This record gives sequence, structure tokens and C-alpha cells, in this order.
Amino acid sequence: MIEEDFLKEKTLSFTYIYQGKIINLRQDKVKLPDGRETVREIVEHPGAVVILALTDDNKIVMIRQFRKSADEVLWELPAGKIEPGEDLKNCALRELEEETGYYPRKIKKLITFFSTPGFCNEKLTLFLAEDLEKRSKNEDADEFIEVELIKPNKALKLVEQNIIKDAKTIIGILYLLVN
Amino acid sequence: MIEEDFLKEKTLSFTYIYQGKIINLRQDKVKLPDGRETVREIVEHPGAVVILALTDDNKIVMIRQFRKSADEVLWELPAGKIEPGEDLKNCALRELEEETGYYPRKIKKLITFFSTPGFCNEKLTLFLAEDLEKRSKNEDADEFIEVELIKPNKALKLVEQNIIKDAKTIIGILYLLVN
Repeated sequence: MIEEDFLKEKTLSFTYIYQGKIINLRQDKVKLPDGRETVREIVEHPGAVVILALTDDNKIVMIRQFRKSADEVLWELPAGKIEPGEDLKNCALRELEEETGYYPRKIKKLITFFSTPGFCNEKLTLFLAEDLEKRSKNEDADEFIEVELIKPNKALKLVEQNIIKDAKTIIGILYLLVN
Repeated sequence: MIEEDFLKEKTLSFTYIYQGKIINLRQDKVKLPDGRETVREIVEHPGAVVILALTDDNKIVMIRQFRKSADEVLWELPAGKIEPGEDLKNCALRELEEETGYYPRKIKKLITFFSTPGFCNEKLTLFLAEDLEKRSKNEDADEFIEVELIKPNKALKLVEQNIIKDAKTIIGILYLLVN
């Protein structure tokens, strides 16, 4: 395998184009491994958590919500962005309860991944949440969300039929099924 | 299930903050289902293809490349963005050959998904490519890429060990293994 250093790009300078509510946009001027220079457009995101929550009768807690960027209602796993200074596990507990009303007695981290590293630094951490208690109605003030409980095999069908089309959600479902 | 119309947001106006080489950044002023107004930050991307290419001895064609946004070398499936007017399948054939030197005699579309629909409209289409012919060295002029052939079970281990941490790549590998 080639050493990392022979593939790396060196940052020469950077400029912020936009600093927003959730994302920032940055341009990095970089030197390529062969010495040429180019510009990389980079979207900065604080990172997020995704929760694969399983009920005692082995159903996946899913949500349906409208996504402006997709311009449609998507099936997703509960998820949300990390608040400044927030611990990842606490973020997962908070988002799961806000979006679905469930609180897990057991929670563990599975994997972390980049959603789209070609132009964005967003990292998502997938948690497995079990032994759920329904604490409240889902009352996330800013979000219009419908909760659905789906059997894993049915969820796989929805992935294969391309009805579920959110990357983090597909990862959570397939990860459950290979394990 | 709640009807889509009761979850939808209506666009009141939009403004472009940035129109770049690969991405644009837009702000949409929207009306929520309850009548309140908010602003959505949306990154526009032309969309991309991902190729799960299998050699005759059932190895996955993977690449290692530096990603500026992640600031590290990532293991990925070959992938690339769609050129204006380009057919998805032709894009997959072009990107696979440019990045790896392989050309498939068989190719088919599996699924399409949004990489991160909370703030971005990027859609990725996953193709399965088989019956590969090595046509050329990988000579993508703009990219510094190393090609590796990996057995599916080894790839799954790399996902579970969180060494593979690119979302589209995890989807391709897990999709292969559940089928």
C-alpha cells in the first residue's frame, strides 16, 4: 500500500464564503501530491448521531419527515446534529426522545462514518439503542415527524424497493441485518 | 400514515449565497406545516454514481484516496459526480475506468439514495459491475488514487472495525452481503 503522505494534499490558504446556522462553506487552496495547485469547496458541519432503536418485539423505530433538500417525505432513523460541547451518547439519547418519545435503558456506539467526504466533513455516529421505555409523545417543537415501527425484514424490503433512500438509514438497517 | 401534504414545507423565496465548481449554496425561506416560517440552508450537488465492481474471483475493487474535507486517506468504492447531461450508466462506466482501469461487461443499477438530506440534495446511484476487463492503468489526471482488491468478508471486517468510514462505500459492501 502507498503511504498516506504520498496521497495527501497540503493546505496553502483558506477562505470562509459563508458561516451559517448549521453549515459553513469554506474554500481551501491546496497543493496536490505532484505540486500542482487546486481549490477544494468544503462544507463544514458539526456532526450528527443516528439511532438504530429496537423495541422489545424487535421492531426498528423509524420516522417519516419532510426534507426540503430532497423535496419529499423520507423514511429515516432518528438522528440529529451535535450541539456545541455535547457528548455523542447524550446527543443520541436527546434526539431519540425528542423525535420519537423513546428512551433506551441500553445504548452503545456501533460505527462512525462520513456522509459525503468529497466536499463535506460531516461525521455521523451510529448508536444501537435497546430496552426502550416510551416516556413521552414525540414533541420536537421544530420538527414535524411521524413515528413508525418496522420489522427488520420489512425495512430491508423498503431498502431494496428503494422506498427508503436516506444513506444513514440504509446503513443502520443493513448493519443490523449482517450482524 | 400521515399524508405527505401534512408534513410538507412550502417555499416562500430563495437566495443563492454561492455558485461554485461542484456545489451551490442556497437559502430557502419556508412556511412550516403549522404556518410558522424558517430558513433552510441547502447545498446543491449535481449527483453522483458509486460502483460496486466485482472481479471474477469475487473481490471488490476499492480505492484509497485523500479527502481534504476528512483530512485523511479513505477507503472507498469508485465513484464520481455526474457531468451535465450525462447518462447515469455511462457516468458509472467512465468513473470506474478512470479511477481503476476496469471496464465491466455487465453493469446494473441497484439503488439510489440521498447522502445527507438534512441540508444537501446530493443523490447517489449505486451500480453493480461484473465481468471486468482491465483496460488501462488508472490514470485519472486530477486524482491520486490507489486501487486495492478486497474480499467481501475482509471488507465487512474493515466496516466493523470502522477502518472503512465512507457512507456510500459502507452501503455498497453491506448491500452485497445481505443479498
